Amino acid sequence: MGQTVIQYVLSRLKDLGVTEAFGVPGDFVYPVCDAICDDPNIQWIECANELNAGYAADGYARTKGVGVVVSTYGAGELCVFGALGGAHAENSKVVHLTGMPGLNEQAGNFRTHHMIADQQPNYGLFIDMVKPLTAGGDGAVMITPENCVYETERLIAAMQYHSKPINFCFPRDMIDKSPIMPDGELSIPLANPQSNQDTLDAAVKDIFESVAGAKQSCILPGYLLRRYGCVSEAKAMIEASGLPFFVGLQDKSILSENHPQFAGLYMGRWVGMADDSLSDWVEACDCIIGLGPENHEFNNAFHTMQYDFKGTINIMPHSTRVGMAQYDNVEMKDVLTALAQAIPKSDQASLPAYTGSVGAPTGDAKDVITYEPFYERVGALLRPNDILISDTAITAVLGIPRMKLPEGVDVEAQTSWGAIGWGTPAVLGNALAAPDRRCIIVAGEGGHQLTANEMGTFYRYGAKPIFLTVNNGGFHGERVTNRYPDEEYNDLAQWNFADIPAAMGCEDWYTTKVTTLGELDAALAEAEKAASGVYIEIIIDTWEIPQGGDWLFRGTGALFGMPTRTWDGWLKEMAAKQK
Amino acid sequence: MGQTVIQYVLSRLKDLGVTEAFGVPGDFVYPVCDAICDDPNIQWIECANELNAGYAADGYARTKGVGVVVSTYGAGELCVFGALGGAHAENSKVVHLTGMPGLNEQAGNFRTHHMIADQQPNYGLFIDMVKPLTAGGDGAVMITPENCVYETERLIAAMQYHSKPINFCFPRDMIDKSPIMPDGELSIPLANPQSNQDTLDAAVKDIFESVAGAKQSCILPGYLLRRYGCVSEAKAMIEASGLPFFVGLQDKSILSENHPQFAGLYMGRWVGMADDSLSDWVEACDCIIGLGPENHEFNNAFHTMQYDFKGTINIMPHSTRVGMAQYDNVEMKDVLTALAQAIPKSDQASLPAYTGSVGAPTGDAKDVITYEPFYERVGALLRPNDILISDTAITAVLGIPRMKLPEGVDVEAQTSWGAIGWGTPAVLGNALAAPDRRCIIVAGEGGHQLTANEMGTFYRYGAKPIFLTVNNGGFHGERVTNRYPDEEYNDLAQWNFADIPAAMGCEDWYTTKVTTLGELDAALAEAEKAASGVYIEIIIDTWEIPQGGDWLFRGTGALFGMPTRTWDGWLKEMAAKQK
Repeated sequence: MGQTVIQYVLSRLKDLGVTEAFGVPGDFVYPVCDAICDDPNIQWIECANELNAGYAADGYARTKGVGVVVSTYGAGELCVFGALGGAHAENSKVVHLTGMPGLNEQAGNFRTHHMIADQQPNYGLFIDMVKPLTAGGDGAVMITPENCVYETERLIAAMQYHSKPINFCFPRDMIDKSPIMPDGELSIPLANPQSNQDTLDAAVKDIFESVAGAKQSCILPGYLLRRYGCVSEAKAMIEASGLPFFVGLQDKSILSENHPQFAGLYMGRWVGMADDSLSDWVEACDCIIGLGPENHEFNNAFHTMQYDFKGTINIMPHSTRVGMAQYDNVEMKDVLTALAQAIPKSDQASLPAYTGSVGAPTGDAKDVITYEPFYERVGALLRPNDILISDTAITAVLGIPRMKLPEGVDVEAQTSWGAIGWGTPAVLGNALAAPDRRCIIVAGEGGHQLTANEMGTFYRYGAKPIFLTVNNGGFHGERVTNRYPDEEYNDLAQWNFADIPAAMGCEDWYTTKVTTLGELDAALAEAEKAASGVYIEIIIDTWEIPQGGDWLFRGTGALFGMPTRTWDGWLKEMAAKQK
Repeated sequence: MGQTVIQYVLSRLKDLGVTEAFGVPGDFVYPVCDAICDDPNIQWIECANELNAGYAADGYARTKGVGVVVSTYGAGELCVFGALGGAHAENSKVVHLTGMPGLNEQAGNFRTHHMIADQQPNYGLFIDMVKPLTAGGDGAVMITPENCVYETERLIAAMQYHSKPINFCFPRDMIDKSPIMPDGELSIPLANPQSNQDTLDAAVKDIFESVAGAKQSCILPGYLLRRYGCVSEAKAMIEASGLPFFVGLQDKSILSENHPQFAGLYMGRWVGMADDSLSDWVEACDCIIGLGPENHEFNNAFHTMQYDFKGTINIMPHSTRVGMAQYDNVEMKDVLTALAQAIPKSDQASLPAYTGSVGAPTGDAKDVITYEPFYERVGALLRPNDILISDTAITAVLGIPRMKLPEGVDVEAQTSWGAIGWGTPAVLGNALAAPDRRCIIVAGEGGHQLTANEMGTFYRYGAKPIFLTVNNGGFHGERVTNRYPDEEYNDLAQWNFADIPAAMGCEDWYTTKVTTLGELDAALAEAEKAASGVYIEIIIDTWEIPQGGDWLFRGTGALFGMPTRTWDGWLKEMAAKQK
């Protein structure tokens, strides 16, 4: 018997490097699960639920290029939407495989389980619903033997072109059929996009002239370089230019922080996060070359970046903008490669190399743990080539960007989508994508609760990350950004976090709960030695605030008509009230 | 200061009996959370994640009429979709309140966090996406001061009319504005639907004649009676008719099982679940009067019900069908009320009263636990007015329907949507909706894993259900319905379930793990006495199968080309292989 529909699709996903698939089984999707289990080159990874499986596929995709999530129809499928939204926002290549009622049931117009209660069964409803979350807004399709080859190729090309999720929905009874092979060559939209040579020449010339004519220039590489496989081309271009480069929050770790031209974080006027003198320098540039950074409030320091847009260049995946001029149909890789040859070498004085603002560990062993000493210890824990997951947690976001990373460390975060709890399943994906690399996650306990039921999966599949779960008594990111820090919805059910891994079956894990720096140091020393997974619950007082947090508190205070408030001021007010 | 936009919406939800709101906070929705916390008549219930909050609101709505779930934009909102799909499928009145970027951000065309990475920001994308899951396909709207009053009334009317979810999406900066009160009377579509009197008369006459002319008749009341507040009208009509009534899987407990006219479950030819002699009797009827039962394969015993469609009547919420004649614009309540006056009293011989097929507890204290003795003990545990949640788990589905329920017991299940894991958050909703009633949930450990992170919430808010978590070594419902029972995706990470409540902070709960009938009996005796929540992990061997499961196994065997297989046969094959 020849290849089946699902075997064809899986073979193409394996061509892209996929060796694991994350999912939750269900009857409409059984034959997909079966085919994965039958395939010696793809490991089925059973997740605790569908959202988690989607986040895990996202984490995997960030490290390995493409990630796969499998769910059943409707009841399973809709639960993946949150992960697909995140993958779309963050340009992560997630492939969603779902099953659906067979063509037999569809022909009979039967209402099956896992359907909504419409007057007329609409089997394709969830495909229609998911489309906006997929590549090009049209990256979801029902796969039949007839369209299998064409649609598989079309969807994969769209995923690669847009760096967005795609969705294959298989009628139950078509999955094991033989695909009908098309006659002749297929014409696949968006496959192998080519630059228009004339446009490319013009764009490169325009950039050359902008840089040559500028008094002061810098480069802002963005995380899209990695999604489009252009990191080495960007490095060559940056080195040819001799210009300093800076990164925003979302772009941390895209290039080596030990590179002599790396000048630091550009974080606008975010007090506690930004270095004002660096921001002054960047904003004094009359030429700023972006290599795909994105403009949203978490990457533009809440709109506090102040530069002349006309003096900016942005080299995007398939287009380049130079000031007000738009050049379409030029590929990022081609522009960077051409610039590496053409860009004038800067004779600007070089800027000091980046050092980070998180120092070596300080504090006494008996001290309770506060944020800065915690960050100092995370910084000290890092080794070259670690993967560091910064969960959507103020605890992670306000510390990790300020650390100077050892060579090869990748920081992964969901900077624009910002789903709390994303990190726990995502690090499962990272860990299985790169079994030879150490994975460390910094999470707040609030977000962690959303997805902590994934813990058992780590043990089952031998993933051994280091969990640094900061228990600071609630949703701290919300505490410092909402109306009143003591609003009851900032509080959580009181879990005993250090007991969670064992309760979920992580039998040999090193788990502990620490409240002092001495305990934290001892636990981290154990973590360095552990052959198992590690889970450290780190207690930080509810009313502590990390550096960079007070600025958010003041800013959101202004939003709520409380312009003069500070965190310290608020604490004093509360203390006075309690007397 | 007068009422704000959110206060207006909340006041209307309170009019419908809402006293709790389930949710996860987030910045775009802070003012909604604030307004709930400020309102002495609505309790904020913080859930572990958004999907769980949606399931909890669904459980609450089933018991109290209307349930509310709150989430933030995008990253939170998309995670509720699974729960909204379920609420749509099961006609549960769930109100979803979300925040979104303010009109200020929308005017600036800013890309904010929690958005997907489209070329142009489309703030209303998630509203468009959710619409098919809402009442009438159009029950989701962006609420502004201008449209607040009209749209609130329109959505509530649509929710009541269709018994489906609705979605209010609030721009952050409009939530605390004053709504603009409309001049004059509003005309609200679908509010106070009225029967057309001529159609009503004709429909009732047609039913009268059908019943009067029939040799043998029966009634199939459906769960929609409860959703539309028509239970007492249905009871009056049934009593006036003198006809026996039967229920399908989804309709269990809709009317008292102690009613002298209740004749049993009608489960087609589901071996182990159906009573063939009853199915023969039902199918010999030349007049079958449905009071809104739904036709999907979980409620029609996988298409094994065999009767003449032309001899059936179905009284639906807003229409009635008599044989092939359709009567639109007749309200269920009016049809039932009229029939209670008009229907001829049957002179059929009465059928024996229902006894159920789950007996009194049997087995020795030293016996390991198997399914039937477990069901016998669940049956014996039930007291009048309990709420019994049957999670989407074969362990629950194959036992609970066969129990004869004490007076006033409600069984809640997600019979058509069938999301595994729904029950754990749903019972939180049930418990908070009816604090004076005892809630018992039967769940399989596989589904329970999906949503078990909700456990801490029970303790935080004082909900004290009895959890009967059957740990049978994996996804048992999948084991008996897929290709090979030992497929690896039927297995799970090995949790220590009995440790979960304590790890999530349920400090004083009675929790235990039992493997023998004696241990189970002792644990249930403790459960009867407990003033706290109760969590019993019940171990049943992986290769046991509940009554009614073998028929599924044979049926799905046929689907996979294995028509002669039986569970016992398969076990013997496996044993032989291992020798």
